[in-house]
Amino acid sequence: MSKVRVHNLAVSLDGFATGEGQTLEAPFGHAGTRLMEWFFETRAFRSMIGRDGGSEGADNAYASAWAPGIGAEIMGRNKFGPQRGAWQDEEWKGWWGDNPPFHTPVFVLTHHPRPSLTMDGGTTFHFLDATPAEALARARDAAGGLDVRIGGGPTTVRQFLDADLVDHLHVVLVPILLGRGVRLWDGLESLEDRFTVEPVTTPSGVTHLTFARR
Amino acid sequence: MSKVRVHNLAVSLDGFATGEGQTLEAPFGHAGTRLMEWFFETRAFRSMIGRDGGSEGADNAYASAWAPGIGAEIMGRNKFGPQRGAWQDEEWKGWWGDNPPFHTPVFVLTHHPRPSLTMDGGTTFHFLDATPAEALARARDAAGGLDVRIGGGPTTVRQFLDADLVDHLHVVLVPILLGRGVRLWDGLESLEDRFTVEPVTTPSGVTHLTFARR
Repeated sequence: MSKVRVHNLAVSLDGFATGEGQTLEAPFGHAGTRLMEWFFETRAFRSMIGRDGGSEGADNAYASAWAPGIGAEIMGRNKFGPQRGAWQDEEWKGWWGDNPPFHTPVFVLTHHPRPSLTMDGGTTFHFLDATPAEALARARDAAGGLDVRIGGGPTTVRQFLDADLVDHLHVVLVPILLGRGVRLWDGLESLEDRFTVEPVTTPSGVTHLTFARR
Repeated sequence: MSKVRVHNLAVSLDGFATGEGQTLEAPFGHAGTRLMEWFFETRAFRSMIGRDGGSEGADNAYASAWAPGIGAEIMGRNKFGPQRGAWQDEEWKGWWGDNPPFHTPVFVLTHHPRPSLTMDGGTTFHFLDATPAEALARARDAAGGLDVRIGGGPTTVRQFLDADLVDHLHVVLVPILLGRGVRLWDGLESLEDRFTVEPVTTPSGVTHLTFARR
């Protein structure tokens, strides 16, 4: 059976995986880039945006696990864009330009479905009003036997964890206090009972936590 | 100037430093002993309770830093005991028996002062209705030039951090989700701006975070 995986989900010490006040200019709200700086330094990220160089150590090893073996992604509406409620128009095609880094079908969870968007490079955005289990069934069909990635944001990941649909969770603990935003861990008491948890601190100062289903 | 230090303060991944429902039998409420298991294994803890053996690695190195150089402790009422409100009697002398492990003056913050308690081994409990800054002034006087430890619980540590009175904070991140209890980090947005933070994961699976004032 294909696995359901979460990768590179950064959280602050106080448990926020994104800040308050998302806008077009600030996808992570007041958190700015602080949760993702460890990632921007990696060779994996730089190659994703067509640049050379980058770190090749442990952070890069974790970051690189994001793509291999993935056949589809599921993401929340707020990862796709800053709009809320009904779409004003259908001009918005995500933050990632004409050739998004996914290169697979991507299922965007929203209460406001719209026609699918075929992008360059193999990414197609489909818009679904569905429960986590329903969305996962659709994504598994589309993934052709490969794994399905839950791409975030934190609310979406939390819903899939709550429904016990996640096999592999990679969280990156960044030693900052955001104070406000969207919490990842709420309502997940004793999550560790279902997983083997391995924490590893890297020289950049973050701590990678890998939760693997027992 | 003597320093103000916090040691061995364990928090869950979701930020709770103690559980819900503290009682005489359960000082950490529903968290049980889960936040402190890394500590109970150390030689430092075992020697504190008069037992031999214990681990001698990184966890023990951190745990051992608790006592040296400390001349007084400040603790919250809820670290001293499970009672709330006015004292029903003065029989309760803390969780630690006749010879508590502090061996210094200990200032217990409470809105219900009572006479000081002189215990065996150099520990004296004083009961103060005071602000963090006032309590620190009293503890510094009593510490004879040595450092002052803020002993917890989380509410007390948070108040001292909020008042910017802490120089050294050692937090132990335990990879469990308590779901409920008393949060350490609330209201401390951007705390990291005032500190250099060093995280280290140890083989027991916890991550030690040392915050040193910049």
